[in-house]
Amino acid sequence: MSHDFSERLDRARQGLTRLGWSGLLIAPGADLRYLTGYPAVALERLTCLVLPRDGEPTLVVPRLERPAAQDSGVEAAGVRLLDYPDGTDPYPSVLRGIGADAAILSVGDQMWASHLLALQAVLPQTRWQTARRVLGPLRARKSPAEVAALAEAGAAIDAVHQRMGEWLRPGRTEREVAGDIARAIRETGHATVDFVIVAAGPDAASPHHDTSDRTIGAGEPVVVDIGGTMPSGYCSDCTRTYVVGDAPPDFLEYYAVLQAAQRMAVTAVAPGVPAQDVDTAARTPIADAGYGPAFLHRTGHGIGLETHEDPYIVAGNGEPLGEGMTFSIEPGIYLEGRHGARIEDIVACTGTGVQRLNTTSTDLVHL
Amino acid sequence: MSHDFSERLDRARQGLTRLGWSGLLIAPGADLRYLTGYPAVALERLTCLVLPRDGEPTLVVPRLERPAAQDSGVEAAGVRLLDYPDGTDPYPSVLRGIGADAAILSVGDQMWASHLLALQAVLPQTRWQTARRVLGPLRARKSPAEVAALAEAGAAIDAVHQRMGEWLRPGRTEREVAGDIARAIRETGHATVDFVIVAAGPDAASPHHDTSDRTIGAGEPVVVDIGGTMPSGYCSDCTRTYVVGDAPPDFLEYYAVLQAAQRMAVTAVAPGVPAQDVDTAARTPIADAGYGPAFLHRTGHGIGLETHEDPYIVAGNGEPLGEGMTFSIEPGIYLEGRHGARIEDIVACTGTGVQRLNTTSTDLVHL
Repeated sequence: MSHDFSERLDRARQGLTRLGWSGLLIAPGADLRYLTGYPAVALERLTCLVLPRDGEPTLVVPRLERPAAQDSGVEAAGVRLLDYPDGTDPYPSVLRGIGADAAILSVGDQMWASHLLALQAVLPQTRWQTARRVLGPLRARKSPAEVAALAEAGAAIDAVHQRMGEWLRPGRTEREVAGDIARAIRETGHATVDFVIVAAGPDAASPHHDTSDRTIGAGEPVVVDIGGTMPSGYCSDCTRTYVVGDAPPDFLEYYAVLQAAQRMAVTAVAPGVPAQDVDTAARTPIADAGYGPAFLHRTGHGIGLETHEDPYIVAGNGEPLGEGMTFSIEPGIYLEGRHGARIEDIVACTGTGVQRLNTTSTDLVHL
Repeated sequence: MSHDFSERLDRARQGLTRLGWSGLLIAPGADLRYLTGYPAVALERLTCLVLPRDGEPTLVVPRLERPAAQDSGVEAAGVRLLDYPDGTDPYPSVLRGIGADAAILSVGDQMWASHLLALQAVLPQTRWQTARRVLGPLRARKSPAEVAALAEAGAAIDAVHQRMGEWLRPGRTEREVAGDIARAIRETGHATVDFVIVAAGPDAASPHHDTSDRTIGAGEPVVVDIGGTMPSGYCSDCTRTYVVGDAPPDFLEYYAVLQAAQRMAVTAVAPGVPAQDVDTAARTPIADAGYGPAFLHRTGHGIGLETHEDPYIVAGNGEPLGEGMTFSIEPGIYLEGRHGARIEDIVACTGTGVQRLNTTSTDLVHL
């Protein structure tokens, strides 16, 4: 898959022009990979793309990272490389790229505070903004190649879920099961394992429970929320709920409510629909069944080069959905101290409706 | 292994008092884990420890993370939990914990720019500093329990290097070998695989080369730099250089120079010695042999809950080493377009000298 990085850089510059900002300063992470293809890792040594509104982009890199930056092909996108040796101060180099009179600069959301504070010190008159206002809308609208990459990631994580019967059984600990899942995430083609949540019984009542040495019991609902990053850079994220043996009757009752709510939210997706309406579509049937306070998080998050990015499917986000937006729909019901359930699919907003990028059944899986 | 988090919080407050700063604001990452034991992941939702100089610490967390924060035991360390639901603005809560009249606040180095900019907006009169001046010196001096945890991590990564003969051979690609190594990093007890650098032939001349689909050739030197994080949270990082078949004669010549230089730098470690003297000890013999410009990075970095932390072993760092400091010693020689070598051990500065935490031979490994 190849992306047109020159075009992305141009569109970012157009965003700067619209807002009247002087430039973008982008540290390693998804923003940098999106704009240049360079998959650098954030470090205490500064790596920073300097994109002036009216000038050529420069990538400031530590000297030892120069070969890696070159290999990633940033120069083909028209980005000049400027390196500095260990033990020298790189922040004034950024200033050379942007000009000392920049009135408003924006920095990528995930730039480390240590770098931002150092930049603020060399440009004390500048006002600082988050680059999300420029890059969020660009990154939120995926190209067909990006949607295809996310569909590939979705199929890979679906294949892991479909093997769950090999690993998940009473008497094993959450951590043992998670180890098997992590191996399978790599085997299905992911480059990295990003998270493996295996939450059984009362642990399932904590939405971001990780894994523990708790032994899984018969009849306990188990929430399995897993994801990784493909070699393309695009991420997977899918949750299914399992039970080995007979689930508690009240659990089965609210699982049916949850499944219907998740389906209604998926169906609500279409271009022009405000993001918060999809949240409402999931929340209303859960609240109507009396479980409103037990659904204690937003309905979803965008996904692409990061697991969490724009658009967020949350009350208060009135932004309309548009073709190419990809995000999770993952309502949950959590009964503290007892058990919980969550169902999560990644979906894409199409020109006319919705496409699920996880395609397995959302039924409770009895193993 | 248990750590005394209350004592660490007290010592951080003493640092604030010494500097006259009003408080520390710490986002997820190693600083937060060091101060509270909570291994949270950085996200777009704000999680922030608020440690006022003269008040009780508060951890502001998204509501869905509250159970995870509770399970991590932060309340036992005297930290109050304050949660907020999705869709509400958490930044004013931080202000409630710290007081609106804070003159100087410090933030953890790795707080995301998006969070720092939002905090700067609610506290426009405050001056901002990096927390490293308070936490760097605390985290740099490891307790005996921490040194033991790093020794355990060192033994685990040594065990991976000792199995290299199972995987590394001509005709396989760097990526195939890296996949096997990643599996072994988990099998030896690491919780996560942090990096796997397999750099053969000309790729070995790029210090931070990752891995590629390049097929390894007979007689090519291969730099293998690998590390992970143990369940304790402490990291491993070790580099050895391998060759299958007959290495080029000039490579063997400079490898001997490198090995002697690395040994001299290890031997130079003792309490009271300035960090930069260890860099000089590695650099001088390499420069004397005519390879000075080919050693194009600093000699080392501290290691603990992060792979890169204080102290840095670099020209210009006159800080004296002290008992309990743990860091890498990793000189390298890189001949662009041809090949390269690096040798890396983690060492601890003891009360009288040095202890290697990687204990395998630094000889070139012929497979």
